Amino acid sequence: MIMETRRLISAVKTAWALLPVCLLACLPAAAGSVKSPNGNIELRFSVDNTGRPVYEMTYKDRAVVKPSHLGLELAKDKHASKGENETDLMDGFRVVKEEVSEFDETWQPVWGETRDIRNHYNELAVTLRQELKVKGGGPGAALVPQVRTIVIRFRVYDDGMGLRYEFPQQPELNYFLIKEERTEFAMAGDHTAWWLPGDYDTQEQMTQQTRLSEIRGRFNTAVNWGNSSVAVFSETGVQTALQMKTADGLYINIHEAACLDYATMHLELVDAETKALTTKLYGGSNAYTPAPTPSPWPLPAPLTFVSHLTPDATGLKGAMQTPCETPWRTVMVSDDARDMLSSNLILNLNEPCKLEDTSWIHPTKYCGVWWEMIVGKSSWNYTNDYPSIKLDQIDWSCVKPNGRHAANNEKVKRYIDFAAKNGLDEVLVEGWNVGWEDWANMWKRDVFDFVTPYPDFDIKMLNDYAHAKGVKLLMHHETSSSSQNYERHLKEAYELMNKYGYDAVKTGYVGDIIPRGDHHYSQSMNNHYLYVIQEAAKHHVMVNSHEATRPTGLCRTYPNLVGGESARGTEYEAFGGNNPDHTCILPFTRLQGGPMDYTPGIFETRLENWSDNTSWARITIAGTLALYLTMYSPLQMAADLPEHYEQYDDAFQFIRDVACDWDDSRYLEAEPGDYITVARKAKGTDNWFVGGKCDEQGHQSVIKLDFLDKGRQYDCTIYADAKDAHYETNPKAYVITKKVVKAGQTLRLTEAPGGGFAISLIAR
Amino acid sequence: MIMETRRLISAVKTAWALLPVCLLACLPAAAGSVKSPNGNIELRFSVDNTGRPVYEMTYKDRAVVKPSHLGLELAKDKHASKGENETDLMDGFRVVKEEVSEFDETWQPVWGETRDIRNHYNELAVTLRQELKVKGGGPGAALVPQVRTIVIRFRVYDDGMGLRYEFPQQPELNYFLIKEERTEFAMAGDHTAWWLPGDYDTQEQMTQQTRLSEIRGRFNTAVNWGNSSVAVFSETGVQTALQMKTADGLYINIHEAACLDYATMHLELVDAETKALTTKLYGGSNAYTPAPTPSPWPLPAPLTFVSHLTPDATGLKGAMQTPCETPWRTVMVSDDARDMLSSNLILNLNEPCKLEDTSWIHPTKYCGVWWEMIVGKSSWNYTNDYPSIKLDQIDWSCVKPNGRHAANNEKVKRYIDFAAKNGLDEVLVEGWNVGWEDWANMWKRDVFDFVTPYPDFDIKMLNDYAHAKGVKLLMHHETSSSSQNYERHLKEAYELMNKYGYDAVKTGYVGDIIPRGDHHYSQSMNNHYLYVIQEAAKHHVMVNSHEATRPTGLCRTYPNLVGGESARGTEYEAFGGNNPDHTCILPFTRLQGGPMDYTPGIFETRLENWSDNTSWARITIAGTLALYLTMYSPLQMAADLPEHYEQYDDAFQFIRDVACDWDDSRYLEAEPGDYITVARKAKGTDNWFVGGKCDEQGHQSVIKLDFLDKGRQYDCTIYADAKDAHYETNPKAYVITKKVVKAGQTLRLTEAPGGGFAISLIAR
Repeated sequence: MIMETRRLISAVKTAWALLPVCLLACLPAAAGSVKSPNGNIELRFSVDNTGRPVYEMTYKDRAVVKPSHLGLELAKDKHASKGENETDLMDGFRVVKEEVSEFDETWQPVWGETRDIRNHYNELAVTLRQELKVKGGGPGAALVPQVRTIVIRFRVYDDGMGLRYEFPQQPELNYFLIKEERTEFAMAGDHTAWWLPGDYDTQEQMTQQTRLSEIRGRFNTAVNWGNSSVAVFSETGVQTALQMKTADGLYINIHEAACLDYATMHLELVDAETKALTTKLYGGSNAYTPAPTPSPWPLPAPLTFVSHLTPDATGLKGAMQTPCETPWRTVMVSDDARDMLSSNLILNLNEPCKLEDTSWIHPTKYCGVWWEMIVGKSSWNYTNDYPSIKLDQIDWSCVKPNGRHAANNEKVKRYIDFAAKNGLDEVLVEGWNVGWEDWANMWKRDVFDFVTPYPDFDIKMLNDYAHAKGVKLLMHHETSSSSQNYERHLKEAYELMNKYGYDAVKTGYVGDIIPRGDHHYSQSMNNHYLYVIQEAAKHHVMVNSHEATRPTGLCRTYPNLVGGESARGTEYEAFGGNNPDHTCILPFTRLQGGPMDYTPGIFETRLENWSDNTSWARITIAGTLALYLTMYSPLQMAADLPEHYEQYDDAFQFIRDVACDWDDSRYLEAEPGDYITVARKAKGTDNWFVGGKCDEQGHQSVIKLDFLDKGRQYDCTIYADAKDAHYETNPKAYVITKKVVKAGQTLRLTEAPGGGFAISLIAR
Repeated sequence: MIMETRRLISAVKTAWALLPVCLLACLPAAAGSVKSPNGNIELRFSVDNTGRPVYEMTYKDRAVVKPSHLGLELAKDKHASKGENETDLMDGFRVVKEEVSEFDETWQPVWGETRDIRNHYNELAVTLRQELKVKGGGPGAALVPQVRTIVIRFRVYDDGMGLRYEFPQQPELNYFLIKEERTEFAMAGDHTAWWLPGDYDTQEQMTQQTRLSEIRGRFNTAVNWGNSSVAVFSETGVQTALQMKTADGLYINIHEAACLDYATMHLELVDAETKALTTKLYGGSNAYTPAPTPSPWPLPAPLTFVSHLTPDATGLKGAMQTPCETPWRTVMVSDDARDMLSSNLILNLNEPCKLEDTSWIHPTKYCGVWWEMIVGKSSWNYTNDYPSIKLDQIDWSCVKPNGRHAANNEKVKRYIDFAAKNGLDEVLVEGWNVGWEDWANMWKRDVFDFVTPYPDFDIKMLNDYAHAKGVKLLMHHETSSSSQNYERHLKEAYELMNKYGYDAVKTGYVGDIIPRGDHHYSQSMNNHYLYVIQEAAKHHVMVNSHEATRPTGLCRTYPNLVGGESARGTEYEAFGGNNPDHTCILPFTRLQGGPMDYTPGIFETRLENWSDNTSWARITIAGTLALYLTMYSPLQMAADLPEHYEQYDDAFQFIRDVACDWDDSRYLEAEPGDYITVARKAKGTDNWFVGGKCDEQGHQSVIKLDFLDKGRQYDCTIYADAKDAHYETNPKAYVITKKVVKAGQTLRLTEAPGGGFAISLIAR
């Protein structure tokens, strides 16, 4: 049941909207404001004396966003109806209407951290009119009037706000090309920030923690991003969600919500050294605008972030058709770090579920033939006998196997047996399909067909075998970022899944996008991912998208998007390691946009114990158990090998027991990069699970069991780090304690450096 | 039945192939040669003292191509295994093998100008090895050896030659990016040329006739190309097929054959003013190479054409995976212009038919709901009530019609009746499907869905109505060049066709390619067209592709590609007119690559007689009848309105009678831009049809009926221009004469300015 109220608070058609344009400059700036339901957050809007829209935001009367401009630069459009240049949507605006309203609904997600989500905000919608004289069509044409209307909509919640631009359909604005969106976020101080370097294609770098003023310096040192960053567009460019903390203890987070057919936003910080904002329009051969030009607009004050969209192959940022709108640009704020984690602001700013039937969508615990290939012990590819492969020219039955191919019948059956025995729902199998011999970074368009198994993978037999044991196989579609090829094969690939009984697919987007010049975060690729989700839904297929775009809460609208990667996952433990604080940052940043398929659960942290890989996982076993709670996801992998779990079966009991869908969640302790403790109530039960994860410093956790039902007893099992546990020197030292507890009691737990704990609380 | 012989003439593994590389420079250049079967053409190959491959070509000992270099510049590949730069495939080669062989087969096309086509050539295949020291991977890496092998294959016919580059699979050459292909064609004189300005997207300009030395001057004057050329890459850049004539009467034609997954080739003429060949690599945001750089290779002598491939959005020309090869680069030559028209060299250089079942492919005569929209009398779109359309947001049943929509039930039935009455096989209907309200040049990706009819087009009823009368509807898929959108809808669109009984589709590619930055002639788009043809074949659908790439004979391999546009068609008679000589040029140029859907048959040449269009067709009625023969195509439209044909039913009798598939064809008279006369024998009959078309000068045609069966009598009907006929002042003046003729007689016919004639010869 959805409770919903919408109440119009005021609708002011400002009187001077009818005044002649020539008087505009003399008029006082228009201003409106709206407060959050609890009054803590205030959003003020105005138009400055050049007609540029300005907003500012406070939290308990402290500045969060100082006065900041809003607007969009438009690109030349050779098809523009009036002359060569589209006029920017930057200035010359006046307010023609301001509408304030309240909205309050409670909705139920298909899966989630809580059974109910309240969507309660006050809204300010400002209608702005730009009246200009612009060059008419043809050379030497006279100036002609042009009237364009946009709406800037603000939604103010108790834990933050979202704003977006809306472009109604109108005679003078039907199509436009975006050169750059210029949404500013003027920070009130030199905050501490947890940031990733701006990049059009990946979020798999290590998070940097610096003051804002130190961002440029970090770019200029030979910093190890932990990944080959391919497209640094500015030496102060960072990605979102960007978590910050102010000197006086405010937590601020900037991100976006509901990025559908629009380019992903980065933030470019203006600092003391900034000379101009970059506007890299590369031209291409259909050149619209000469290559890199500085923005003609005045530079905002230092410590202001300015939006920077991901370009397409020609350098343009987007092609729009009215009626349309941008994604929401979000600023979350609180003086309690836990509010950053419990916030539903991003989900609430997305559209309600568009799928009529969601009965086929289910949270899933899975294992898979995966980690041993990541570690290098076995291979995705079947043969080493060809320097390159053309799919239509190979008779696979005659190919010499390399003896290392993991996705073979025997091994897959072993994993199916393990899943069946341990109550895991599905088994992922990577490397099942032909094409892995030369799959990445070759500019090879026709890299996979997604329907042809290797000769040693009997797709029918294995699915039958799994189904007989109550287990499903989980499909894998590595696209190698050849999005065109994937779209060509999509329908047949999903039909194959339907035929054999797969209901979920892990997609992959490793490498450069084909068609060449495009980016993982561009408008066209964001549309591609959406197309995939929609086509998958038609086939009742759940999607877990790796190396794809940065998520922005679309899983509310399309809950078959059950997971994603878009950050450094556990795989990096085999590529040099993730810092111990990594998983204490991700919930503040990457997870704001939706659940992450982090693939936790590495028990055998020293890879050299069973492979040639000298990398090691920087986490204790108790710590990795905690991730099943602190890294919320409806899709949870037990990523290690069955034989490793069998060695620590008492600890593995927690993975068997833990739920992955919840009626309630309580963030008990949190500090970005330091520690996170959360208690969650398993869906449809009275059982609770608690997880605590900390950084390399360790953490003393104090857990008040006041979330339990009063008067009821719970069988409590605690999986804690042993006293001498340490992520590097003694990661496997854990202690399992069982006792009976009840509401009101307090648990005091010591988390080792790089460690954590997990607790199950089963109602008697 | 295919007759085929292949005979190895010689295989010389040159002895010095085993000599150390250091001796290379001291060695005499290697050289080989091969002659055409009749000995008229000789091709000589050598390697110069820098290891650059060189070829030259003579015809009856006269230079056709003077010594010209061959090679490819490769682009930086950030994924290259050895350092940042791929080494060019331009020099440092030595010959390791030369193989000469003869090939002779006769094959039968599914449809064509003749029943049998002889493919008879002598071949020279040169294996070249390049051994270099190149920079190893990583900064400061030492030089490492690199050995690469390519094959240059020459096929020499009696009427020309083809050459191509082949890249065997090998350890040092698995993937490469093409910066530019540098195939040279050094002309032996300042020939007269019929050329189109180089353009990456269209061939719909008016042909220019100049000396080679005058090409640059033509670009620099305010020439009316008859079309907005969007991508002039060089002021001496021209398109192929390029027809030339030498001062001493040789006809030379440069084109290409079998361009599949490769960029379309242009030719850049080096003249006295050329400073450097352009290498426009725009970089894009994945920049491989900085923006425009001059080629580092020495400039060839003036009057040399150099290949210039169509770029992708990043400026690159192609991504290749070995084993692979380029298209054939062709040079046709003869001292008889008729040989340019009767040549099968382009078809012969394409692969044999790849479709197992071709029974569903048939030559087709059709009419259609089309010309009245082109003229502006009615509209493709259904409503004028929306400034723009989003397909998923319109309830078409509630939309207000504009009253001008042509593809309505009543009108389509009228065309079906006309087709049935006159023995036309199909009826094209454009504008049947939703989306035409804002279809072109809006950067609108989701422009059509190809399955939803407008409310006044009852797709089931109309197909049933047509089928009951023995007629089919001909599908229309305007893609608006949103190739990604078309690929997404392709399967459903063809399934709809199968459901309702369509067996042919006219596709359209008006406007800029989406994804943005790509071009109609790029590698990726050429692959797109091929993908469409292949998917269509799976659904037994014939394709007639408009505004697509320039054809190169693929219809041999995929005979369901029954037609194409890729030049100024009849539609331009409504856009200012085609010059009277236009159709006397196209068979020498555009038609070399395959049949053109020119859509002839405009009887009412003065459009203002029935519309507001003041344009007029520059042709007589007798001349337009001739086009059904001189513009060979298995797909022939009667493009004018039924009511216009009904006014001239005696002339229309020829369109009813004329065949569109042939057992034999004899080009009787030809001179580029002046006149063409051809006699064709209708498939499976003893009947002949003769057509003659001339330019604005008129022509006296002398036709010896020596192609008829000796001793047999034929009912001859001649549709000739009246004495006072003239394409401008008196286009409808024709005279129909009937008589009985036999072999050995001679017909003398006067073609009026812009006129022609048509003859049917029905065997008694």
